[in-house]
Parts: sequence; structure tokens; C-alpha cells
Amino acid sequence: MPLFLDTSSPNFDAEFDNFLHLKRDTDVQVDAVVADILADVQTRGDAAVIDLTAKFDGMDLTPETLAFTKAEIDAAIETVPAAERAALELAADRIRAYHEKQLPEDAWWQDDSGAQLGWRWSAVEAAGLYVPGGLASYPSSVLMNAIPASVAGVENLVICAPTPKGAVNPLVLLAARLSGVETVYRIGGAQAVGAMAYGTQTIGKVDKITGPGNAFVAAAKRRVFGTVGIDMIAGPSEILVIADKDNNPDWIAMDLLSQAEHDESAQSILITDNADFARAVAASVEKALETLERREIAAKSWADYGAVIVTSDLDQAAKLSDRIAPEHLELCVADAADYSRKIRHAGAIFIGAWTPEAIGDYVGGPNHVLPTSRSARFSSGLSVLDFMKRTTLAQMTPAALRAIGPAAETLAISESLQAHGLSVRARLDQMNEDDNG
Amino acid sequence: MPLFLDTSSPNFDAEFDNFLHLKRDTDVQVDAVVADILADVQTRGDAAVIDLTAKFDGMDLTPETLAFTKAEIDAAIETVPAAERAALELAADRIRAYHEKQLPEDAWWQDDSGAQLGWRWSAVEAAGLYVPGGLASYPSSVLMNAIPASVAGVENLVICAPTPKGAVNPLVLLAARLSGVETVYRIGGAQAVGAMAYGTQTIGKVDKITGPGNAFVAAAKRRVFGTVGIDMIAGPSEILVIADKDNNPDWIAMDLLSQAEHDESAQSILITDNADFARAVAASVEKALETLERREIAAKSWADYGAVIVTSDLDQAAKLSDRIAPEHLELCVADAADYSRKIRHAGAIFIGAWTPEAIGDYVGGPNHVLPTSRSARFSSGLSVLDFMKRTTLAQMTPAALRAIGPAAETLAISESLQAHGLSVRARLDQMNEDDNG
Repeated sequence: MPLFLDTSSPNFDAEFDNFLHLKRDTDVQVDAVVADILADVQTRGDAAVIDLTAKFDGMDLTPETLAFTKAEIDAAIETVPAAERAALELAADRIRAYHEKQLPEDAWWQDDSGAQLGWRWSAVEAAGLYVPGGLASYPSSVLMNAIPASVAGVENLVICAPTPKGAVNPLVLLAARLSGVETVYRIGGAQAVGAMAYGTQTIGKVDKITGPGNAFVAAAKRRVFGTVGIDMIAGPSEILVIADKDNNPDWIAMDLLSQAEHDESAQSILITDNADFARAVAASVEKALETLERREIAAKSWADYGAVIVTSDLDQAAKLSDRIAPEHLELCVADAADYSRKIRHAGAIFIGAWTPEAIGDYVGGPNHVLPTSRSARFSSGLSVLDFMKRTTLAQMTPAALRAIGPAAETLAISESLQAHGLSVRARLDQMNEDDNG
Repeated sequence: MPLFLDTSSPNFDAEFDNFLHLKRDTDVQVDAVVADILADVQTRGDAAVIDLTAKFDGMDLTPETLAFTKAEIDAAIETVPAAERAALELAADRIRAYHEKQLPEDAWWQDDSGAQLGWRWSAVEAAGLYVPGGLASYPSSVLMNAIPASVAGVENLVICAPTPKGAVNPLVLLAARLSGVETVYRIGGAQAVGAMAYGTQTIGKVDKITGPGNAFVAAAKRRVFGTVGIDMIAGPSEILVIADKDNNPDWIAMDLLSQAEHDESAQSILITDNADFARAVAASVEKALETLERREIAAKSWADYGAVIVTSDLDQAAKLSDRIAPEHLELCVADAADYSRKIRHAGAIFIGAWTPEAIGDYVGGPNHVLPTSRSARFSSGLSVLDFMKRTTLAQMTPAALRAIGPAAETLAISESLQAHGLSVRARLDQMNEDDNG
């Protein structure tokens, strides 16, 4: 049974607070193991990666077979049925179109002092995308990571995707191809993160690593952060649906289950202003769970982390939503676009009952790599900007330096940084000499 | 003596590569200590912060004296000389004007399928700025951290600044006031980071922590990353000056020293296409070092990490610069603005000989919190965007869902995520029913 809360209950605040701080992350002690793996990869390069892949993935590789050949990728892609290929192409096109709108503008202006100021954006040169193997091997995630990098202008894009005991997902290779990625390494885990961060004899060092992964991958990304850039470290995924009574309970139930079926740590939450509707959705969830393919996973997620919250009105629902700061937020209410303006903290909003969250996972266009575990309070989904960086620009004229240089000199002296002040003073003195000469 | 390299030397490539990988970070084993401190703060809150501040800063605090009172801040600010106050106000105004241009645009458009797509930016609610104590207590850094947060719209901005044995820098408090920060805690180290990340009885939990600090602060920020957002973890600072022979060697020497005087791990590099000019600058550095106030620090930095590189032409200089990816890059060459387009990886560029880097530290307008240790390959200086986050938006119509929903369903099934597919199918079936009904 999921948690049922009602804002009219005298204990609501305490119960909601407990709910907010429910821990869903698996606390595995992996950090020490990961530190050893990273050190090994840094020292021994290819040999370490190959040994670790034999150990963890049961795969015997050589430097020559670390990456798929073009022929291997071609052959795998051939096996993809036409309908799946068409669907993936539609998704790729829509994701590309959305992300192209994110390309940032450069700026360059003159201010009152005569100084020219601005900034210029540029792409990182090399990025590595981690794609989990096994159950969590999602071709859609390949698109969501690689297309923003490609739109940003990253020249050198590689993928690491483990193939435990040789298992390959042809759709992953097709998604790589549709995203413009030619190099796919059949390695995973902390060793793949290490190989991309430090480089090996065969695998080139990248500047940025993105993509989801298990606890070992997350710990490795945290450790190499600084040597390379990383995206947010993803926690378990969650959906919050705010729905009024004028909804089909079966739709909302299935939306909740579409999150719950991801994994046992996923979280699905319904907030509604109608207790009867809440009960109808909960009943529909139970019924759907009887036949759902991934019913064991979904049922455990729903029982352990699911929640149904009844509020006195929809304003209150928006306020609670902001405290949850959900990764995915579905707004199935009247005038949903207007209502969405009440929301401040959410990774992605799905507006109106015709927008099930699953649309956003695949073909909507916005990214599905989103801030989890309440981190939408301070971070954003993956975007083109994650693969770009900004260089600030400043150009003084003599007049501008005369106007603002003395203030810099004063502050430098106040901070006991004499050479800072002298570097400005040398120029100002020259100007005065020129004036008098 | 700094390193001298000449691109015409047969060993240049190997020598340059060694130079690139020179380690400047102090490798102190602080992580375990920091883990204990963070756990203590999380468990005991104020009591832990107070005990640790007594231990490390020799300060006896109570929950009531953790923060400066308004009267204490007023009194400290009164002591700031008028010239310094005016300089800090000029700096604050210019930094604010520059950063206001960074405010991002929301977007909302309709695509061919009839779907509405877009995104909306919002500020984080609470941010905490770390301001080091002692020697590295820079009021300019307060402005550079707090003003972008204020421009972004962060409502709740606090500062933690240790006051070892009670030492207070009135300019830091004035900078806080000019940036709109009312709450300044007199605490530092990992305990301050922990207090802001987890909250205590007295100190409110924030969503984002920025600002420079020593190895303990850096390790603490790395550990709380995920619970809160953080800015980049700063390494030792560096400057690269590319200068042709038509420069005053004394100016360039002082620019190099303005970096070297920061700390012994700082790095100053000159690249020039003229060997005579290189020698003249090196000689000027030696001469200036005789009298510079911070000559011990600057001389050690210059000897241990300084470098002078002579290239065959300025194109080669730009290429080497991109491999170094400097935090600060000064371009003292003809047509410097044009030349700057050859550069891809740099935190900030100072264009032309009238733009000493020190201008950017204080009053130029761009931020002085910049990516160090070659991380300009993948990251940017601090900006308004660091205190905002983006929520993506999608709204389907029935027609849009009919156009793209089947592809989502196909991909969901291919990823064995049945409920994802069913959440789309339920809506499509309803439409078909409506059509036929």
C-alpha cells in the first residue's frame, strides 16, 4: 500500500516532512572499490580496462576489440525492425529540433566607460556518454545524451556501453548512429568512466562525461569530477501527478505506473483535491498491477515509495509540489498551462491530460535526463549548454582604464595584492606621461 | 627560475606535455576528516558547528552569536575609508550591470504536430556563499559570488566567513551589504559547508553553495554535491599572457606577477613569438621581485610553476593556449579582438595591452570566479545561470498525440516498459472511440 496523506489531517505537516526525507538511494559501500578501479585504469590503461571487463562483464576483449567496428554496428542495425527504426528516427528528429533552440547567443557591447564587454560560447571538444547495459540499456537515453552534444558542436563523441557476456542492444547502436556517434566501446562500470576521464592507449581522454549508471558509475563520476566535467549524478526517478476529479482514473493510474515500473526505488505520487478521485486512481493502480508485465517491480515501488495526497484545493497542491521538486510533473487540471505558472521547482512539466509523461521519455523533444531526488531545486535537465562553455571577454580603452582603473588599484591595495595594483598603475602612469609629453 | 621552452627545440612536444601535467594541487589527505565533520554537523547541528569553530578558529560562539548582528555589520562598515567604499561600489555596479545581461529568456512555441514546447527559467530559493578567512578574505569575491545570485533572483542569500580568533574584514561585510546579503555567519571550513548543506537549528539549509576555499572546504563541497548544487571546485589560479614584441616588458612582467603573488601554487605563463622580448620580460620579473611586498610567494610561484614559451609565430601561440586552457588569458598583440577568435578554451580573455587582468579581478564586470587547472575545456566562470534552473515544458493536443504517440508506444515496448506504452495507448484508444462514437 502506498502512503495516503490528507492535508486536513492534524499530523499532515510532520507526515509530509517524513515523506520528503524518505531515503531511496541504495547505500552501498562502493567508493573504496571505485577508487581502486580508477587508480588501476589510470596506471595500466587498456590492460586494466580489459581485466576489469573480463571480471565484471565476463567478456574477453583486446585493445582491438574494445570498440565495435563499423561492420559490427552495420550488422546490428540491420536487425532492427522497420517500425522501431522509424520511431527512433522520429524521436531523434524531434529531440534535435527542440535542442537546437537551446543554442546560446554570444554578446559583445560597449558600456559608458568605453569598455567593450561580452562573452563567447564554444563547444567542448570531446564528450563521453555512458550507456548502462542489461535491463537499463535504453536507446532513448542514447539520443537524449548524444543529440545535445552533437547540437552543441562536440567534435569527438564516444559511447561506453557494457555488453555483459556479449549481450548487445541493436537499438542502442542505431541510436548512436542516428546521433552521429561512430565510436562505441563495449565497456562499462567505473572502469569505463576512468578510461574516458584519463584516457588509455586506445581510448581517448574526453572533457565531459554524461549519462546514467549504477552506484559504481555514479561514484566514479563523482571522483573524476574536476578532471572532467560531469552531469548531475542521478538518483532514483520520480513522477508527481497533480490531477483534479475531471480525469480518467485509469489514465492517471497508468501514468503513475509508468514511473513505478522503472525500478523498485522509483517513486510515484498523486496529489488531488478530491478524495473520491484519489481512491479511484488507487483502485485502478491495484487492478492494473494484476496484469502488468513488470508488476513485481512496480508493485514494490508503489508500496514502498508511492503516495497519494489529498489537498483542500489545487493551490495547496502546487505548494506541496514545489516542496517535492519532482523530476517529472504532470498537470492534469483545467487550464493546465496557466496552472503551470504556479510551479517553480520541477525538472519537466507535462501540461494537460493529453500529455502523458511517457511522451517526454521518447518523442516530445525536451530532454529526459532530469534532476532527481529534489535536485530540481537547484539544477536543470541535460541541455546543449552542458556541452558548451562560455569565455568572458573584456577590452579596455585608455579612457576606460582611466575611468575604472583607479578603483581596481584601490581594491587591490585593500586586499594586499600589490602587483595587481601596480599592473594597473603602470598603464595609468604611461597615460599621464603621454598627456604631459 | 621559471621553465623556458622554445617550440623550435626538438624536445618541445615532450617538455610541453610534461608542463601541462604538472601537478599543482596540494595533495592533503583531508577527505576522511571532512567526512567526520560533515557527519557531526548533520547529527548535532549547531552544537557541532560551535565545537568545531572553537577547535579550528579559536572562537567561542553560541547559537545567538553564530551570525553577525545588523548593528555589528553597521559598525564594521562605518570603519571602511571612503575611497575603498567608493571603489567597492563602482565594482558592485559594474558587476551587476554585466551580469544582468546574462538573464536567460524563457521559450514557448508550437511545432508542426501542434504540440506546444518550451522551457521556463527560475531562481534557486536559497544560496550560501563561502568566503575564506585570513589572507584569502577577498571582498571582491563576495561581490563576484553574491551579485550573480542576487541578479538571478535568489531570495535567501547567506554568507559563511570564518573569523579566526575574531578577525573580521570590514570590507567583506560591506561587500555583503552592497550585494544585498543580510546574514553573515562567522563560521568556516567543512563545518560551514555542512551547516549550509544540511541546515542546523540556527542556520537554514540552502540549495546551492558557491565560493572558493581551502582543501577542507573543497572536499566538503565535493561530498555535499547532490544534496545541494555547488560551483566548480577551484584549483590554483593561473594566467597566460600572449604578447608580441610591441609591448612594454614591465607591464607584462607585472601582469605575470599579479597572478604569482596570489599563492605559491599559482601559475604565470608568457607565450611570445620573440625571444628577446621573452628575456626582457623575465628580467623585468626578476627586478620587480626584489621589491614586491609579496615577493616570497610570488618568487616561489614563478620559480616552481612559471613558464616562458617562445613560439615561431602567434598562430602557434593560440594553439598552445588552447592546450593549456588558461583561467585568465591576456592578449597583448596587434588586432587583439580579431586574434581572440583563434582561442577556444579560456575562462576569461583580456583583450589588448590596456586590459590588465587585474581589471577583471575587480571592476571590469565579468566574473572573476573562473575555471582553473585546464577545466576551461569543459566549464565556464560563475554566472547568473549558476543560480537558476530550467524547467522544460510540453503540452500535447489530441492531434499532436495522435501524430507522435504511436512512436512513443513503439519505443516503450522495445524498452520493455509496458506501462509507458499503455499510458499513451489509453489516450489514443479514447480518441478512436470518440471518433467512432
